[in-house]
Amino acid sequence: MGKILMKGNEAIGEAAIRAGCLNYFAYPITPQSEVAEYLSRRMPEAGGVFLQGESEVAVGYMIFGAAACGERVFTTSSSPGISLMSEAISYISAAQCPAVFVNIVRGGPGLGGILPSQADYFQATKGGGHGDYRMLVMAPNGVQESVEMVMMAFPLAEKYRNPVMILGDGLIGQMMEPVEFPDHLESEPSNKDEWATSGMDTRKSDQRNLVKSLFLDSEQLEENNRILKAKYDQMKCEEVRYEPYNTDTDYQVLIVSYGTMSRVCKTAVDNMKADGFEVGMIRPQTLFPFPEAAIEEAASKESCRVVVSIEMSMGQMVEDVERSVHGKRPVKWHGKAGGDVPTPEEIIDVVKSFADIKT
Amino acid sequence: MGKILMKGNEAIGEAAIRAGCLNYFAYPITPQSEVAEYLSRRMPEAGGVFLQGESEVAVGYMIFGAAACGERVFTTSSSPGISLMSEAISYISAAQCPAVFVNIVRGGPGLGGILPSQADYFQATKGGGHGDYRMLVMAPNGVQESVEMVMMAFPLAEKYRNPVMILGDGLIGQMMEPVEFPDHLESEPSNKDEWATSGMDTRKSDQRNLVKSLFLDSEQLEENNRILKAKYDQMKCEEVRYEPYNTDTDYQVLIVSYGTMSRVCKTAVDNMKADGFEVGMIRPQTLFPFPEAAIEEAASKESCRVVVSIEMSMGQMVEDVERSVHGKRPVKWHGKAGGDVPTPEEIIDVVKSFADIKT
Amino acid sequence: MGKILMKGNEAIGEAAIRAGCLNYFAYPITPQSEVAEYLSRRMPEAGGVFLQGESEVAVGYMIFGAAACGERVFTTSSSPGISLMSEAISYISAAQCPAVFVNIVRGGPGLGGILPSQADYFQATKGGGHGDYRMLVMAPNGVQESVEMVMMAFPLAEKYRNPVMILGDGLIGQMMEPVEFPDHLESEPSNKDEWATSGMDTRKSDQRNLVKSLFLDSEQLEENNRILKAKYDQMKCEEVRYEPYNTDTDYQVLIVSYGTMSRVCKTAVDNMKADGFEVGMIRPQTLFPFPEAAIEEAASKESCRVVVSIEMSMGQMVEDVERSVHGKRPVKWHGKAGGDVPTPEEIIDVVKSFADIKT
Amino acid sequence: MGKILMKGNEAIGEAAIRAGCLNYFAYPITPQSEVAEYLSRRMPEAGGVFLQGESEVAVGYMIFGAAACGERVFTTSSSPGISLMSEAISYISAAQCPAVFVNIVRGGPGLGGILPSQADYFQATKGGGHGDYRMLVMAPNGVQESVEMVMMAFPLAEKYRNPVMILGDGLIGQMMEPVEFPDHLESEPSNKDEWATSGMDTRKSDQRNLVKSLFLDSEQLEENNRILKAKYDQMKCEEVRYEPYNTDTDYQVLIVSYGTMSRVCKTAVDNMKADGFEVGMIRPQTLFPFPEAAIEEAASKESCRVVVSIEMSMGQMVEDVERSVHGKRPVKWHGKAGGDVPTPEEIIDVVKSFADIKT
Repeated sequence: MGKILMKGNEAIGEAAIRAGCLNYFAYPITPQSEVAEYLSRRMPEAGGVFLQGESEVAVGYMIFGAAACGERVFTTSSSPGISLMSEAISYISAAQCPAVFVNIVRGGPGLGGILPSQADYFQATKGGGHGDYRMLVMAPNGVQESVEMVMMAFPLAEKYRNPVMILGDGLIGQMMEPVEFPDHLESEPSNKDEWATSGMDTRKSDQRNLVKSLFLDSEQLEENNRILKAKYDQMKCEEVRYEPYNTDTDYQVLIVSYGTMSRVCKTAVDNMKADGFEVGMIRPQTLFPFPEAAIEEAASKESCRVVVSIEMSMGQMVEDVERSVHGKRPVKWHGKAGGDVPTPEEIIDVVKSFADIKT
Repeated sequence: MGKILMKGNEAIGEAAIRAGCLNYFAYPITPQSEVAEYLSRRMPEAGGVFLQGESEVAVGYMIFGAAACGERVFTTSSSPGISLMSEAISYISAAQCPAVFVNIVRGGPGLGGILPSQADYFQATKGGGHGDYRMLVMAPNGVQESVEMVMMAFPLAEKYRNPVMILGDGLIGQMMEPVEFPDHLESEPSNKDEWATSGMDTRKSDQRNLVKSLFLDSEQLEENNRILKAKYDQMKCEEVRYEPYNTDTDYQVLIVSYGTMSRVCKTAVDNMKADGFEVGMIRPQTLFPFPEAAIEEAASKESCRVVVSIEMSMGQMVEDVERSVHGKRPVKWHGKAGGDVPTPEEIIDVVKSFADIKT
Repeated sequence: MGKILMKGNEAIGEAAIRAGCLNYFAYPITPQSEVAEYLSRRMPEAGGVFLQGESEVAVGYMIFGAAACGERVFTTSSSPGISLMSEAISYISAAQCPAVFVNIVRGGPGLGGILPSQADYFQATKGGGHGDYRMLVMAPNGVQESVEMVMMAFPLAEKYRNPVMILGDGLIGQMMEPVEFPDHLESEPSNKDEWATSGMDTRKSDQRNLVKSLFLDSEQLEENNRILKAKYDQMKCEEVRYEPYNTDTDYQVLIVSYGTMSRVCKTAVDNMKADGFEVGMIRPQTLFPFPEAAIEEAASKESCRVVVSIEMSMGQMVEDVERSVHGKRPVKWHGKAGGDVPTPEEIIDVVKSFADIKT
Repeated sequence: MGKILMKGNEAIGEAAIRAGCLNYFAYPITPQSEVAEYLSRRMPEAGGVFLQGESEVAVGYMIFGAAACGERVFTTSSSPGISLMSEAISYISAAQCPAVFVNIVRGGPGLGGILPSQADYFQATKGGGHGDYRMLVMAPNGVQESVEMVMMAFPLAEKYRNPVMILGDGLIGQMMEPVEFPDHLESEPSNKDEWATSGMDTRKSDQRNLVKSLFLDSEQLEENNRILKAKYDQMKCEEVRYEPYNTDTDYQVLIVSYGTMSRVCKTAVDNMKADGFEVGMIRPQTLFPFPEAAIEEAASKESCRVVVSIEMSMGQMVEDVERSVHGKRPVKWHGKAGGDVPTPEEIIDVVKSFADIKT
């Protein structure tokens, strides 16, 4: 199948359908309302359901309900909407149900703005909701990767019976790029008979499943949390994804950057290389699990003098970078949080200044 | 004034009144409903208002409304309730309004249980809501400190025009201890004329104040985020609070522990000391800002071989400990998450095992 | 097609499907929850949608939304639920959309009880909501007539572009009777192109339809109300339905009774006839329009000495009977309102006492 | 005390305070939002509470809650808002709690318009909510009478432990008239100890009161409905209020008209009298109980040839007039429903045409 020129938000919607997800519940919010607009037309065509909830709180629980029944289900929203879903995400995690959440991040906090941002890094990776849970968080750097990550997200959510979040931003949602869709996925979680409350008559066995997050007995709650932790540890072993860039050189500076921001950083790296100044980059594709080992190793390279976390936020991922580097190199942060994406020139200035080199 | 024997939840309510807070909005949830019960009687006596919202989402916005008007205001809730308030907390932070949130943490995620927990560490310190914001987070280890922290919280919230969170747990809420209240505070934010929308007729000047979190212009949003970051940086300079314990010895192990958990750790430290085994401890009283420098320094002591984060959660504060230690010592985690508090004996076993010493 | 033994609530659900209605929105409430239970299974089988709203207020507006799009749509509820829909019913009437509401009346007011009642007569016939509107109200006396009336209700709603209400009670909902279904109806309002906002692409013409209830201009609002009144006047001419019983005799008493209550009255009439005492009866099948002329004529019969409205309510239909009789005969009321249906013996006593005849 | 020039909406708010009502819950809607605006300032001054609910549904239940506690409480709204309160009004009636509802009627149905209307006559008098209940309904014809009726409404609500409704319209709300306030009332229902759930410690006896509307036992529900009916029958005996006008003449036509509409009718009556044509008028001040006997008697006058119900609605009160007249005279209706109040000239034309007299 050839490439199609599509807007990010629409490609995300289409990818979900091709991933066999026929349940989409959402509440409109800029800059991702085009997903809802697209799916309001496409879902019925595909035999699926799009239901606009009366609020994001409601959407969160619609997701929980459908997921508990073993249905593939997802939502898209933007920052404040995700905050309103955070109680539900905690419940879904606790009850071990698979579901996919797409956050097309806008500037915050509060109403903030509608321009692109990465300010929800903490909320996504550390758990906006209460309790010991984690989401598997993927951050695409363009339309094609958005499609691939959305299509990976469903089987991953089902493998771990855990929410998966795609952390995008308004640029990805609005940009048009040629995109190629992977093959269609089957439309049902393969393991749903083991856990989903899909009604006895559609089940092959007489096993009674129970989906719940309430464990009043301390030993049972402890046990549930041990199970969850084991899954998050397994994710750390099996699901770390990242892209190294220009790391086969003797770089003096290591950039860590993800998503839209990393595209600008790549240009900056290329431009500096052309000027004879080598800069390496690690682009985390999963934010949780975070590529800790890869960053530590890259930072440890003898030529490397400093590590810089470049974010469209005021200092969030830098904490994970700092944690990963274990004090082996100084860790710096550079960021912006108003919606203007830093330019390559700005990145070059910053990198060189951290490297103590005159421009 | 002498000491009074009070239950933690009631002492928290009384402390708010003595801190001059006459506005309390809340929605009941175990294990903190006694605060609402107590204040439903006491607030009217004190000339204040207790209003039960129709949900925690509503409570969050009642808090925002009252805070924007320059009224001292607070709420108490427990984990799922705080998740429901996370959008509002983000708005309040963005709009730079002072408010106090008390989270009497219960086991999670989801409905979890009603026994004590520290599982909301990430939510409190990294921001459950969206966007680049922080709360100043204090964690008391008993009833007396709860009272003191609640009474400190209001002036701190007003100093920074930012939410302050008290992170307690069900043990603190339910335990009875003799408590002494500091002197009454004045009942109004001293700087409210500069920012609060309290109505022109009650104002001394003709300044028109505006409280908002929407900044559609990227430069204005950037500016707002720079202001917020400057405040968080100032907190890191001025508000770090912690208690060192047995750190004047040549300890082999450094424990980092807070809240109720730290009381058990102290007993373990005392018992080990009696057996000739020295263990130091840093008890963070503020979780944000985190006592990074103190922990790094304590970890760097020559005798110290390992740092252990002991938590009633599955590995949250350990990330901040790891980050603080900068790779100078190995960092370990020990935790529980079902509601049973680890015993001193369990702590001793764990500490000695990490120190490679046979019990 | 032969007869099937069905419970009233299930037969009502099945009748809607056979009437081509594939949209059912509802919120459960005793004594009609079996309709939702039945349709939660049947609607998907039939290719339709059952959506449980988050409240009856929401259901009312889901109905409005679907109706405005030209979809056949209905709901079932019971007394308090209908009160919560009364704003929406007023809107739907004002905007001239067809929709069917089934009220399986329970005892009121307030929570009341769950036993059968006719206490919502006024609410149904005089308009529970605000403004000058009317619903066409039909009252079945058993399962078979419920099925027929439900199947008539949709074309009538579309003929008048106005809500139609079926007023049943818990006995009809719970009783099992052999029922025969009329032929299937087509699934679309035949006139929807003229008014429904179904999207330009599904329309044959380029006419732009607008559905609204707001008319800020006094002449336009007056005009809308004139249109509505003309429809209600037309209903009074064309839609009056009633069943006369034993009215070809020289009855001394005329009973007016509807629904479940009328079945007991028929037994009483039969028993009195066996004893040589003739009593006539008019059973309104439509409560609005009310069979005023038929009642006036039946009351005017020379032998008739008194008219008795017998209701499972505290005196509601009696007002319409009084109005219809125009002072030609004394009008009496007998009723009960707790859930116990009056027995034939009780009716006989009452009728004879009103007729001044010793039992 | 002298007269003050006040707008109707403000006078209504002030009257409630002077009636000792210190609890006002409301949600803004044109054309009565000035009441909320006025009381948002005045209630705190008077030591009372104004709380804006999150919807009219919520307001209805705030009223119920306060009333159940024995607090004087009222709300003001307009047509759609009253529809949303209709479930709560039914509950309050069933639970026998006193409360005052002011409906400043706007044109309907649906959103309708914001100009004056009498289209909620049925909703007010026949019960918008479900079940056998009635409100005592008063209809003022100006600002002074609004004040008097509001101040009478509270003691009447308490005498009957039943909701009382004031049915006004936008003209009354917006017009300014000189108004004189009756003496202040005491601020507590005198009989509250007998029924209110005000907390044991504020009670003189150890009687435990229970406020409820659920009676699952049929005999208890029947008993509750008998009690309610007895109260409505007592209202019919004791609370009928009306103003006869020009009824001591040999009028050929009898007008029945209320509220703002009746002021225009009076002018028409005066003008016709000046022309030598006598028209009598009955102005119901209570719509429930309806002045049935007075109207029947006035219609029965030998000179009277026709009775005309003149309404700002499409034919609602005319049903009660028809019922009252018992067929003794023809009953006609004239009305308008867009917001334009009929002029005296229009009334004269209509009256003469019904009287078969050339103008």
